Amino acid sequence: MTEAAHTLVLLRHGESEWNALNLFTGWVDVALSEKGRAEAAAGGRMLMESGVLPDVVHTSVLRRAITTASLALDAADRHWIDVKRSWRLNERHYGALQGKDKKQTLAEFGEEQFMLWRRSYDTPPPPIELGSEFSQDADVRYSEAFGGPGGAAPRTECLADVVERMLPYWTGSVVPDLQAGKTVLLAAHGNSLRALVKHLDGVSDADIAGLNIPTGIPLVYRLDADLRPTVPGGEYLDPAAAAAAAAAVANQGR
Amino acid sequence: MTEAAHTLVLLRHGESEWNALNLFTGWVDVALSEKGRAEAAAGGRMLMESGVLPDVVHTSVLRRAITTASLALDAADRHWIDVKRSWRLNERHYGALQGKDKKQTLAEFGEEQFMLWRRSYDTPPPPIELGSEFSQDADVRYSEAFGGPGGAAPRTECLADVVERMLPYWTGSVVPDLQAGKTVLLAAHGNSLRALVKHLDGVSDADIAGLNIPTGIPLVYRLDADLRPTVPGGEYLDPAAAAAAAAAVANQGR
Repeated sequence: MTEAAHTLVLLRHGESEWNALNLFTGWVDVALSEKGRAEAAAGGRMLMESGVLPDVVHTSVLRRAITTASLALDAADRHWIDVKRSWRLNERHYGALQGKDKKQTLAEFGEEQFMLWRRSYDTPPPPIELGSEFSQDADVRYSEAFGGPGGAAPRTECLADVVERMLPYWTGSVVPDLQAGKTVLLAAHGNSLRALVKHLDGVSDADIAGLNIPTGIPLVYRLDADLRPTVPGGEYLDPAAAAAAAAAVANQGR
Repeated sequence: MTEAAHTLVLLRHGESEWNALNLFTGWVDVALSEKGRAEAAAGGRMLMESGVLPDVVHTSVLRRAITTASLALDAADRHWIDVKRSWRLNERHYGALQGKDKKQTLAEFGEEQFMLWRRSYDTPPPPIELGSEFSQDADVRYSEAFGGPGGAAPRTECLADVVERMLPYWTGSVVPDLQAGKTVLLAAHGNSLRALVKHLDGVSDADIAGLNIPTGIPLVYRLDADLRPTVPGGEYLDPAAAAAAAAAVANQGR
């Protein structure tokens, strides 16, 4: 095993109001449910108890990741650390499926199409219509990145798209913090974290489909000087709960 | 009236657990009470309703200001903006009074000494002992600023000390954001905000004693190109509530 030089902690947000309703969410900015808030605080307590104490936190610009970071850091007594946010850590944009019921979508389009949209590496759902209820083209938080309220922002994404837009942020903003000796907490989403894990562990386009990251359980990567994981796949602070939760995520929409 | 070029919003945190218990707090990192959390959210709704929408938030490194900012911004749908923190926005360090009951301190030291510590511009309370229950010398959040856990951090402060340590942050970190055209939210404390208001409005050392800033009500300063208030004293988003609250603060400890 090579020597660990850097510590990176991944934290997937807990249950949101739309997770609870079984709706496709993507870039729609829903809040955590009470259960999700409790998950975030529990994740923070795991950080405190394990002594893995972040020096800086990076989040998406979506409320469920931002609140998760706030609650976890407060529970870990690290609420005072530096904060950075980027749309590049957002959940995958779910296109025209945003706001739709998962079970109903499965029934309407069938198992094959449904799993293709959910799990294929490079097949995005149909793009969402501009000006529709769950699109982001009037959302000012994307103005700076896309030059005017988000008309030029993504209207759908596959996981390959997420990898492509996430990696510049990893390289340009997260890696410099790691190289400055900081323990980095990255509070984000199922698919932006899968995109990062794919990169870190060199997971193939095919194998990433089977990889689920459970919610609310900090996943710690010790990276060597070349930013390679010293333990492939990282280490969950609560491995038993992580295994059970990953199995549950895999069955979503059934 | 000169033309407003910049918008600055000051927000004093709501009731903390120690405000409710009537204890001197200073740099002790207590949480908001439920009432304080409600005040923060109400302040955020005022921002939303008035259309004064921050582009960046600056907070102290104390939980009660950090949580106030998070709850207010979430209520204003601006949770996704940039965040900056500094110990220079902290509450005044209350020295050896930290953790002490206000009423008991008044009884023990008498009205004159009590009001001197609370309201004089340049008389700090006695310094807190290193290693005591409510000192900050082992607190890692001050390590970077003071070169090692906070042994070299302040052990007491008068308002003049707060002005002196706050102003470099105003000039070096807040003003550049204003000059970049951003609406700045500054979520902080009674005395760090009084220090700033003293500077902005040119309040004398004597007159600042009589100036109270109510909790949870956004105070909006429109500044001209030279950073002078276009309306002296700024404008509260809820002026009637602000007047009532300021009167109540003035009677604390009675």
